[in-house]
Amino acid sequence: MDLSPFCPQYHVAVEIVGRRWSGAIIRALLAGRTRFAEIGDVIPGVSDRLLSQRLKELEAEGIVRRVVHADTPVRVEYGLTEKGEALGEAIVALSRWAEQWVDVPADGQETQRYSTSGRPAPR
Amino acid sequence: MDLSPFCPQYHVAVEIVGRRWSGAIIRALLAGRTRFAEIGDVIPGVSDRLLSQRLKELEAEGIVRRVVHADTPVRVEYGLTEKGEALGEAIVALSRWAEQWVDVPADGQETQRYSTSGRPAPR
Repeated sequence: MDLSPFCPQYHVAVEIVGRRWSGAIIRALLAGRTRFAEIGDVIPGVSDRLLSQRLKELEAEGIVRRVVHADTPVRVEYGLTEKGEALGEAIVALSRWAEQWVDVPADGQETQRYSTSGRPAPR
Repeated sequence: MDLSPFCPQYHVAVEIVGRRWSGAIIRALLAGRTRFAEIGDVIPGVSDRLLSQRLKELEAEGIVRRVVHADTPVRVEYGLTEKGEALGEAIVALSRWAEQWVDVPADGQETQRYSTSGRPAPR
């Protein structure tokens, strides 16, 4: 693929996937999480309010579908539309890159972002 | 690739690529733009200050390298490191998705974001 230096569609795509939590939500849905609480459980730090907002945005963008099952009590499930599933290739490619290049022990910088304490381990 | 529902490395990767302008900068570098002004020219709306800040961040993350040529006047070029080049697969996959799914004429919503005027075309 010959990349043009700028592509407005790509710009929109990066904004959609890069919006805080959205990339994580799409990954969770790709991995088969369907319930609101299940999605929230695998995204550390996201509030219910923001998760709900992001899911609505992704639904408006045609990436996520919300299915309401008329059980008692009502059961709601989230999933990816065809457009959302099509994002899988990019998400997997970014995941592969991340596994290879992010959080290298020799660097340590990225590890620190996810450690619960800024202090070095006791000796 | 079997995706786990959450991966902290992926989370960092999405943040890096999704940070405003960063995805566009990486694409411009992949497309062979090397000079500060050339990169800025293909990213509508980015200020010199923010472009400079993003390039420094990407350099600190080991994605971008800055080469100073000792000419008169001094000539500065930007390029991707091996880590940055490795992002190409994900950028291309996201670009493919964007070309297929973003800015569909039937929708028009995404087009509007990039029109210079909110008004409909004169009849």
